[in-house]
Amino acid sequence: MKSYDWVDSLVRMLSERGRGMVRKPSQAVRASDDVEHAIDLCNELLSETGEALGTALAQRVVELLSGLDEAAQGRFLRRLANDFGPNDADVRAAFELWTSKGSPGARNALMAAIEGRRQRLFRRINMAPSGTAALVQMRGWLLRNLERDASLREVDDDLRHLLVSWFNRGFLEFHAINWQTSADILEKLIAYESVHAVNGWGDLRRRLAPDRRCYAFFHPALPREPLIFVEVALQRGLTQAVGPILEAPISSAIRADTAIFYSISNCQDGLRGVNFGNFLIKQVVDELQREMPQLTTFSTLSPVPGFRSWLAALDDRQLTDAVGPHFATLQASFGSIEPKAVRERLFEVGAEATAACEALRRACALYLCGLPGGPVDPVAKFHLGNGARLERINLHGDASAKGRAQSFGIMVNYLYEPERIVSNHQAFATTRRTPRSAAVDAVLEAKAGSVVAQVYAGAG
Amino acid sequence: MKSYDWVDSLVRMLSERGRGMVRKPSQAVRASDDVEHAIDLCNELLSETGEALGTALAQRVVELLSGLDEAAQGRFLRRLANDFGPNDADVRAAFELWTSKGSPGARNALMAAIEGRRQRLFRRINMAPSGTAALVQMRGWLLRNLERDASLREVDDDLRHLLVSWFNRGFLEFHAINWQTSADILEKLIAYESVHAVNGWGDLRRRLAPDRRCYAFFHPALPREPLIFVEVALQRGLTQAVGPILEAPISSAIRADTAIFYSISNCQDGLRGVNFGNFLIKQVVDELQREMPQLTTFSTLSPVPGFRSWLAALDDRQLTDAVGPHFATLQASFGSIEPKAVRERLFEVGAEATAACEALRRACALYLCGLPGGPVDPVAKFHLGNGARLERINLHGDASAKGRAQSFGIMVNYLYEPERIVSNHQAFATTRRTPRSAAVDAVLEAKAGSVVAQVYAGAG
Amino acid sequence: MKSYDWVDSLVRMLSERGRGMVRKPSQAVRASDDVEHAIDLCNELLSETGEALGTALAQRVVELLSGLDEAAQGRFLRRLANDFGPNDADVRAAFELWTSKGSPGARNALMAAIEGRRQRLFRRINMAPSGTAALVQMRGWLLRNLERDASLREVDDDLRHLLVSWFNRGFLEFHAINWQTSADILEKLIAYESVHAVNGWGDLRRRLAPDRRCYAFFHPALPREPLIFVEVALQRGLTQAVGPILEAPISSAIRADTAIFYSISNCQDGLRGVNFGNFLIKQVVDELQREMPQLTTFSTLSPVPGFRSWLAALDDRQLTDAVGPHFATLQASFGSIEPKAVRERLFEVGAEATAACEALRRACALYLCGLPGGPVDPVAKFHLGNGARLERINLHGDASAKGRAQSFGIMVNYLYEPERIVSNHQAFATTRRTPRSAAVDAVLEAKAGSVVAQVYAGAG
Amino acid sequence: MKSYDWVDSLVRMLSERGRGMVRKPSQAVRASDDVEHAIDLCNELLSETGEALGTALAQRVVELLSGLDEAAQGRFLRRLANDFGPNDADVRAAFELWTSKGSPGARNALMAAIEGRRQRLFRRINMAPSGTAALVQMRGWLLRNLERDASLREVDDDLRHLLVSWFNRGFLEFHAINWQTSADILEKLIAYESVHAVNGWGDLRRRLAPDRRCYAFFHPALPREPLIFVEVALQRGLTQAVGPILEAPISSAIRADTAIFYSISNCQDGLRGVNFGNFLIKQVVDELQREMPQLTTFSTLSPVPGFRSWLAALDDRQLTDAVGPHFATLQASFGSIEPKAVRERLFEVGAEATAACEALRRACALYLCGLPGGPVDPVAKFHLGNGARLERINLHGDASAKGRAQSFGIMVNYLYEPERIVSNHQAFATTRRTPRSAAVDAVLEAKAGSVVAQVYAGAG
Repeated sequence: MKSYDWVDSLVRMLSERGRGMVRKPSQAVRASDDVEHAIDLCNELLSETGEALGTALAQRVVELLSGLDEAAQGRFLRRLANDFGPNDADVRAAFELWTSKGSPGARNALMAAIEGRRQRLFRRINMAPSGTAALVQMRGWLLRNLERDASLREVDDDLRHLLVSWFNRGFLEFHAINWQTSADILEKLIAYESVHAVNGWGDLRRRLAPDRRCYAFFHPALPREPLIFVEVALQRGLTQAVGPILEAPISSAIRADTAIFYSISNCQDGLRGVNFGNFLIKQVVDELQREMPQLTTFSTLSPVPGFRSWLAALDDRQLTDAVGPHFATLQASFGSIEPKAVRERLFEVGAEATAACEALRRACALYLCGLPGGPVDPVAKFHLGNGARLERINLHGDASAKGRAQSFGIMVNYLYEPERIVSNHQAFATTRRTPRSAAVDAVLEAKAGSVVAQVYAGAG
Repeated sequence: MKSYDWVDSLVRMLSERGRGMVRKPSQAVRASDDVEHAIDLCNELLSETGEALGTALAQRVVELLSGLDEAAQGRFLRRLANDFGPNDADVRAAFELWTSKGSPGARNALMAAIEGRRQRLFRRINMAPSGTAALVQMRGWLLRNLERDASLREVDDDLRHLLVSWFNRGFLEFHAINWQTSADILEKLIAYESVHAVNGWGDLRRRLAPDRRCYAFFHPALPREPLIFVEVALQRGLTQAVGPILEAPISSAIRADTAIFYSISNCQDGLRGVNFGNFLIKQVVDELQREMPQLTTFSTLSPVPGFRSWLAALDDRQLTDAVGPHFATLQASFGSIEPKAVRERLFEVGAEATAACEALRRACALYLCGLPGGPVDPVAKFHLGNGARLERINLHGDASAKGRAQSFGIMVNYLYEPERIVSNHQAFATTRRTPRSAAVDAVLEAKAGSVVAQVYAGAG
Repeated sequence: MKSYDWVDSLVRMLSERGRGMVRKPSQAVRASDDVEHAIDLCNELLSETGEALGTALAQRVVELLSGLDEAAQGRFLRRLANDFGPNDADVRAAFELWTSKGSPGARNALMAAIEGRRQRLFRRINMAPSGTAALVQMRGWLLRNLERDASLREVDDDLRHLLVSWFNRGFLEFHAINWQTSADILEKLIAYESVHAVNGWGDLRRRLAPDRRCYAFFHPALPREPLIFVEVALQRGLTQAVGPILEAPISSAIRADTAIFYSISNCQDGLRGVNFGNFLIKQVVDELQREMPQLTTFSTLSPVPGFRSWLAALDDRQLTDAVGPHFATLQASFGSIEPKAVRERLFEVGAEATAACEALRRACALYLCGLPGGPVDPVAKFHLGNGARLERINLHGDASAKGRAQSFGIMVNYLYEPERIVSNHQAFATTRRTPRSAAVDAVLEAKAGSVVAQVYAGAG
Repeated sequence: MKSYDWVDSLVRMLSERGRGMVRKPSQAVRASDDVEHAIDLCNELLSETGEALGTALAQRVVELLSGLDEAAQGRFLRRLANDFGPNDADVRAAFELWTSKGSPGARNALMAAIEGRRQRLFRRINMAPSGTAALVQMRGWLLRNLERDASLREVDDDLRHLLVSWFNRGFLEFHAINWQTSADILEKLIAYESVHAVNGWGDLRRRLAPDRRCYAFFHPALPREPLIFVEVALQRGLTQAVGPILEAPISSAIRADTAIFYSISNCQDGLRGVNFGNFLIKQVVDELQREMPQLTTFSTLSPVPGFRSWLAALDDRQLTDAVGPHFATLQASFGSIEPKAVRERLFEVGAEATAACEALRRACALYLCGLPGGPVDPVAKFHLGNGARLERINLHGDASAKGRAQSFGIMVNYLYEPERIVSNHQAFATTRRTPRSAAVDAVLEAKAGSVVAQVYAGAG
């Protein structure tokens, strides 16, 4: 591309000032040197000169970072944690000044002191052409190191704070994805799909056929990189299982009355915790209403990822209560009256035994609606928090090994009714009770009682 | 466009909870109500529900704000100042927690406490489709109110902090502007040009001819709105006056060896203090080097806006020293030996009297190079801080009334030499001494001495 | 751009074969040489080598032609007429072969013989990047020379034949033009507007405001060059005069029920006789119906360019009959009973005298509806041939000098009713009778009689 | 999309006039009716009304045609052949008029008479939005029917004549194809590749990697449909075999000095005989020279599709001469002195026997360079006609079954030297002698003599 003469002259000056030669990353340089060079450049970038140099120095930092191996990444992050955080004495001094209320800039000074130099460093790195991508990638490193090194938490706080601000909804671009989309973007969909794996280009093409829709958010600073995408099937009536969606022959979208959101995937590890899903679903509902006024129903077909492990953690008595009135059927079918044996057999056969089906559906309804503190399933919390309601609990919704392992193959529909989104959300936010359909009520009502709710309170 | 059902249902709920009906702004509603409604919605937007509602509520706030008249804008800003800032007790409590070092989230909590609710509010408003534009406009209101109402300073601190972060160089888009650009963008150039006014579409067309270049920064969230633009003339050799640039017949760009940056204009009042100029000039130098390797010289042709008023503020003795060896010429030409009379006559005739020319050039050189604390002229500070050097001082550079009123028509060239930008900057940052050409040295050397420098120290 | 090595080597070879050096056009070369060089290259382009060379030789021809002055253009066209037409002996021989029916390729051979080499030459010139533009320009030369040099007619036949084929509706691109369109295209609208002159950029901006529409056809081989454009005003109800359209304050398009086509301009002289207007109006009607279903009326506001000169050519008796029952009013008002004096006075005062208004309207209705062979006015023939009907005859429709000189300021509305376009067209094509509204009937009916129609038969 | 009211009203009128109801194609209608309806509409389209109706009627014809099954297509084409060609009497009359030289429009009339109504019909069909695509498709039908029905030849003459004119180089768009291209276009590359089949998306992705280039021509009226594309490998030095190109790991294009055109495929059956390849190769050479000035060599790696069948057609003596001095090696290696046995063995082992290699290479050199009337191989004729020269004859160039069956796996390089393209072409056009490298000369020179050339004259 371009050689930036002034950067090279800066690099010469730095080395003359005795900081050692700053080089482009190369195989021959030991990694530890690269980390120190990167830190040197970071310090320079924070100086007044760094500001004057424009984007060139930031770009050099980005290039240097991109060459770090995993061990070096960890060392670099620790240097960020140790050397670029707030200085305690500065914070105390700034606080004293602020409490005295004398100085008009005191609040700014206190904010700057508690912020430390790291956020400023990140903002300066972001000036580089691929700075945002580098910071998102750095957050990925952080998340991989965070668990074993708590000292990195404040680095993550700073980075997440900035990313949340920069990936604000107002900056996101909403795009439809279809078979006319560029291949380099489509191949990312294949790579990032995290709910129902895409089985090659033929499968992808089917998911982008005229009776399907796919929408994604992009960010101008990460061009050609989807942040999150949702796959939608247009059809007649609600779907209970994902298999028919993935395998159905292409039909006419014109006759559809229902949009099924059957997969939603986040794409960037480094943006974990920056939530786009809520915005995306609502924008897609708007978009589809505008494009196809004949659509009357907007619903997900969602996994229940925590159901089986929750059920497995219950003791025998709790499990007996959870399946409720269907326990007798299990006993009869399994030829056993011992709760322990019934339980073992239930986990063995799952929903493949007809006799177990209603018991599992009942337990799942309790899992999603009956826990006193509200639901604990992450997918349920996401959609209910967005204002959806639980519409149906579908046995045999996902026949894959993963589906059976998570939830005995059960999938559920969360319904998005535009005119009820606010009231559903308000009710759920206040009471933590799951808004639900009459059909789900019917599953629960076959005698369950308040006892059950109390019993399972701690099981989440 | 769209009616957001859930917003309407929210609005109903708010009113039922006794906060009064929230309406779309209308002529019939008294402005004071609109401010209260806007504040109500802002509070709602900060609640958990606000988050769940997605962008619709933010958009409603934006619409409401756009309808406020000037008085209402002021009231709204004061409400932001009084009701959305940090709570002293919270800050103290958070500080105590932080000093105890016990809690891992203590720094976050302290940052949040000192930040108050305002920044969060601004981030939520920014979720709306035209949220960024609304906030930039709001900053414009602020700047107009700030002088007479110091209580708004912290609101400005918060807003500027966010805008600086959001308008980071990494998010800006660099575009060439030419005669194939859309008319709606071009008419903004006419409106925003702040150095040499564009005299209609014919004049603009000439400024976009093949021997001219124009470049601008845009931001994805403010589409079709230039943030800053620079106008460049391609020609042979340095130019001393702007008239020939504006009036020259179109020539071939191919033979040019020099790029003259003859005008640079910021476009958005609400982004005052968010500096783009440094980045823009350097990117244009890069771009031109790539496109036209035959270019060897990159220079501005700049005004000296503070020269005349600086000179006018000198006392007789200081002024005599400033014109230095040329004072005798003035005396002879004006037929007077009284400094006071010479001075009056000098301001009367300006550079139109041949005898006064060298005196004014000498004084201008001192103004730009001889003040002990460094130059005070804003344009000089900008370019020297960017690493340019003062190349020439041109009499009769700007014959317009404005040019004569600011600087007796003097214009100067600041030279950007890519390979010297770093060293110039470093030298200037350390010493505050103006990097300059031999030609400027020659102007100064006709006996000036250290006395002069001391004398004029306070005059800036 | 590019130097094509193989062209240069060809040019060398041609010169070595004794045809003289082929050079790039320059001031120093006498024009007569350029014509001969162009003809040499045209012959080469038609050879097998020409085909092998690809586009480079064609581009050289285009460049050479672009440098010809007006006299040289004429000489070049005459060379095309004399040297590239069909060879009589070849045509006769091919005809004999064809009549013998023996050979399968005989028809092709006869077509090729009668076609001559010119069409093939034009097709080869068209291979150059700007070949189509060069041919359109060449047709412009032709039309300017055609009147005084009938020998060029066959050249025009060939060129028009190709242009009609190449500018087939299927190849045209339909684009909306608005204030976001590029300035270089908009300035062409100003230049090409031929009905109601655009008075600078301010006037243009108003014509592209939200209550206006403008659409154009483009051709992919003439990018950034409109071929034809139409200007539309959206409003409530039919308009009788163009002044209110051009000067009206901007209103909301949403309340409009009527689209007025108030100006339609062809842009390219060289495409005269290649008709786009019919397609453009119908596509705009379709487009507006789709975008704004609330529109119920689609009408032109059109000039009547031939009315005044037609009226002036009538003898006294014919004119008396033409104004029909209103003649007595004229006599009374003008204080004269002599037809000759009445006539003189009528042409003097035009529609500015109230007494003359109905007389002129009646005569205009006759002009448009009462001529036995059908209307002769070119605008009327265009719209009626497209299936429109005559809706209203408006006095004081165009107050400009041109408007008064053409038609005493009268303008008319031609109504496009989508569901009647076919039947109107069929009726008009069969009978040459003007489809018209009851309002126009009323103008005519105030006693006119068949005598009038007979009398004026020859006056067109 | 749109219902065109006026078409429906036309259709009603046609049916009322007794021509039978024209309907949209449907399963229920017998195909024979559809052909008659299509012919009815074609006649209508040629009438004055057809012109007035704009594009709607043409679009209806296009829709009707798209529903014809194969038998109906044939019937429709025969109707075109029988009913829309020139009328003999008209042609004779027009010829008489033309010979009398009296009438200025006589040549036009004769052209129109010999042209008949078909070309005009095709031009009118082309007005429809997808008219060009329909005509290209119709040409595809024609080519499939042409062999068994010679009466269609004139229909093909007319259609080809128009398509050649409409797909003139000046109207083609040249685009680079890469991994950022839309998936719908890329999948067409997979479908249309006719030289070295693309083995799925992974293979395609490799062919579009940074060390590869792909370019295509498109036509504005066939958007998203490539007409022809060429695949290029950038590397160091000439390549002798296609396997390494298809399987090579991705390398840096920056170090490449050679561009290998290893595959060129026409995409549209209906455009057979409309030649784009010559233009495409030359434009790609230009493009690559501009983008990568370091490239010094532009060469194909091409099949020799007719070699083996040509060799097989030689008699024993001719074959003996063809392998020339290498015959003795074959005898020794195969342990046989009988020409017939040697021949059989040679075809059995092909280039897999080392001893046979030079014999095959020598014979191939003769095939490409030694036939008195010039080469007969279609690929050779194409590249030599374009001005390339034969550079190398590579054994083991294509190990696929197809490659061995066509040419014992031999592939050759045709070199495009920009500065010699004209002279190569001229020499080849004049002498039909293959321009060739010293390396090919060396293959031939090992004693071959003029006898050989005479002997094989008739073998092509």
